[in-house]
Amino acid sequence: MPVRSPVIVDLKFIPEEVDDALQGAFPGREVINLADPVHEGRDLSGVDYAVVWKSAPDLFSRAPDLKVVFSGGAGVDHVLTLPGLPDVPLVRFVDRTLTTRMSEWVVMQCLMHLRQHRAYEALARRREWRELSQPEAADVTVGIMGMGVLGQDAARKLVVMGFKVIGWSRTMRVVEGIETYDAAGLDGFLGRSDVLVGLLPLTPETKGIFNRSLFARLSRKGPFGAPVFINAGRGGSQVEADILECLDDGTLAAASLDVFEREPLSPESRFWGMPNVYVTPHVAAASDVKALFAHVEEQIARFESGLPLQHVVDKVAGY
Amino acid sequence: MPVRSPVIVDLKFIPEEVDDALQGAFPGREVINLADPVHEGRDLSGVDYAVVWKSAPDLFSRAPDLKVVFSGGAGVDHVLTLPGLPDVPLVRFVDRTLTTRMSEWVVMQCLMHLRQHRAYEALARRREWRELSQPEAADVTVGIMGMGVLGQDAARKLVVMGFKVIGWSRTMRVVEGIETYDAAGLDGFLGRSDVLVGLLPLTPETKGIFNRSLFARLSRKGPFGAPVFINAGRGGSQVEADILECLDDGTLAAASLDVFEREPLSPESRFWGMPNVYVTPHVAAASDVKALFAHVEEQIARFESGLPLQHVVDKVAGY
Ligand SMILES: NC(=O)c1ccc[n+]([C@@H]2O[C@H](COP(=O)([O-])OP(=O)(O)OC[C@H]3O[C@@H](n4cnc5c(N)ncnc54)[C@H](OP(=O)(O)O)[C@@H]3O)[C@@H](O)[C@H]2O)c1
Ligand SMILES: NC(=O)c1ccc[n+]([C@@H]2O[C@H](COP(=O)([O-])OP(=O)(O)OC[C@H]3O[C@@H](n4cnc5c(N)ncnc54)[C@H](OP(=O)(O)O)[C@@H]3O)[C@@H](O)[C@H]2O)c1
Repeated sequence: MPVRSPVIVDLKFIPEEVDDALQGAFPGREVINLADPVHEGRDLSGVDYAVVWKSAPDLFSRAPDLKVVFSGGAGVDHVLTLPGLPDVPLVRFVDRTLTTRMSEWVVMQCLMHLRQHRAYEALARRREWRELSQPEAADVTVGIMGMGVLGQDAARKLVVMGFKVIGWSRTMRVVEGIETYDAAGLDGFLGRSDVLVGLLPLTPETKGIFNRSLFARLSRKGPFGAPVFINAGRGGSQVEADILECLDDGTLAAASLDVFEREPLSPESRFWGMPNVYVTPHVAAASDVKALFAHVEEQIARFESGLPLQHVVDKVAGY
Repeated sequence: MPVRSPVIVDLKFIPEEVDDALQGAFPGREVINLADPVHEGRDLSGVDYAVVWKSAPDLFSRAPDLKVVFSGGAGVDHVLTLPGLPDVPLVRFVDRTLTTRMSEWVVMQCLMHLRQHRAYEALARRREWRELSQPEAADVTVGIMGMGVLGQDAARKLVVMGFKVIGWSRTMRVVEGIETYDAAGLDGFLGRSDVLVGLLPLTPETKGIFNRSLFARLSRKGPFGAPVFINAGRGGSQVEADILECLDDGTLAAASLDVFEREPLSPESRFWGMPNVYVTPHVAAASDVKALFAHVEEQIARFESGLPLQHVVDKVAGY
């Protein structure tokens, strides 16, 4: 049996969770966990595989012989922007655990806005028992930008919760029970969206797409008057100066942001303290590390037995 | 055509919403809205119908000839405890809008506990960007006590969100995709519940059922170590002194309470300020007043044409 190539693991996740998941992972294969100082300066030439999340820029020069690169998450913008990306397949992480986590976050954010959670929290701080007028989910249309794996699952669950849901993507997607729009239908889509959910990858086309001009085209007919913006795609797709301005001048009623132009979000950012903004630190859908390694093992097994890899990214489209 | 009996409306809801919903309601019939001072001291004898929510104790002596009493909500404990309840059908409110609102609230509370919302809010207040270890819905079993109209809908939606769900009711209910227990199976049910959701009516049997002895039998195997208690049934079913003690000594990790032994909850209550307790002012499933009047109109039409009334309460069982 030929010697099996080691796997480079370079994941800026919670280190204990990575260590834990590595127990028993990749049987019969050396794991080079770059978080372990023992591998500092080690020669990585000849290694076939790397599983990466926010690697240092010298990764590909240190490991020039990679045959497959695996993203530690669903997004690949963090890999596509690394210098020297080799011309080999880039596989992204698609998994039930990641998808359901994202939908948990999206549904929770939509419900917290619908059910005026911050207003009730403010009443509770004043120890004031008072009922607020209560629209129901059916009174609200949630528009999802990005109807891929994550957008479709969130859409399906929001429908079950009673929301009206519409979707937008580059190409037209047929999703049961949901009206969908393609790229050209953007204005019609925006004009109906009382709540806008961003689940887009970051690509040259989606960079800065969530800006004042887009927010101004959202529906103002929803029960809260002004629209709500929710983003769990990538921070690079949003123009934060515009979001702040739109929250200030009432173009937007509220926001939920899991992703930011620069992460970690600066302690100076006004977002942290705004009464109508929920901030989470890029945790909407953390990768389950055990599930990630199982997926990488499965894809390596396919690759080594000559089967086509799954979830390979289109590097030209950027996702 | 015989003169149609007026309808007494005595609803302690948001007054503007009642006024609004009364526009065009009960065509061809006088509406006696007791919130209107013009009806103070009015003789209500001879009136057939009353739609009530938290009436004054003299209602039935003032209106001795009622033929049907309609509850303004799904629960009827507020009617059954009024003095002099006549021996006529008592109809409760069952409606999609009420059911979906309750499920919105229940799913939101389960997600806020699962996704450690309060912990992230605390980090945000400190402007601290930090990822917490993240169990997923599939790691948590939600046990629902009360598998009626509301419990079953919440159960179905929690399953879609990925939670494991089990149910408990007086008689065994068969609900697809959910393991259910009957009254005798309480201990087995509690031992599996990481999150306990109360959707029980208040009856002599359920009074004080949520007490220390019950909390002590809940699962401690869930991802957060100690169980979470969520109640949107009735406050009379819970022993608040026990909840406070159990939160203090770690028997319970956290709670979400929409209902209280005494409402409005006193400004002195410790619940308002506890970092691991969500308080809402009995708004989990506000009745949609328009839908309520449509339901009452429909039932009156059935009654007057000799058809059986729907959603009639079993006064002996108390719900
Ligand atoms: N915050 C977090 O914790 C977290 C976790 C995981 C993922 N994410 C982000 O979520 C993104 C989406 O993940 P996914 O698995 O759903 O990706 P996906 O399956 O590749 O779907 C991407 C969707 O976006 C659409 N899209 C891409 N470029 C577009 C454009 N220029 N105009 C219109 N639509 C465009 C695609 O359109 P087509 O349908 O026409 O291809 C597709 O519907 C990831 O790329 C990642 O950035 C965030
Ligand atoms: N917080 C709010 O805003 C709000 C709004 C609406 C309603 N509620 C409360 O929610 C309650 C439930 O509403 P619903 O429409 O779901 O009522 P429902 O359809 O009558 O269901 C009641 C459920 O509780 C079970 N149950 C009753 N007594 C029991 C006992 N002693 N032991 C075990 N199980 C028992 C019933 O068992 P069986 O299946 O065997 O009959 C049934 O499953 C209402 O009564 C009301 O108090 C609160």
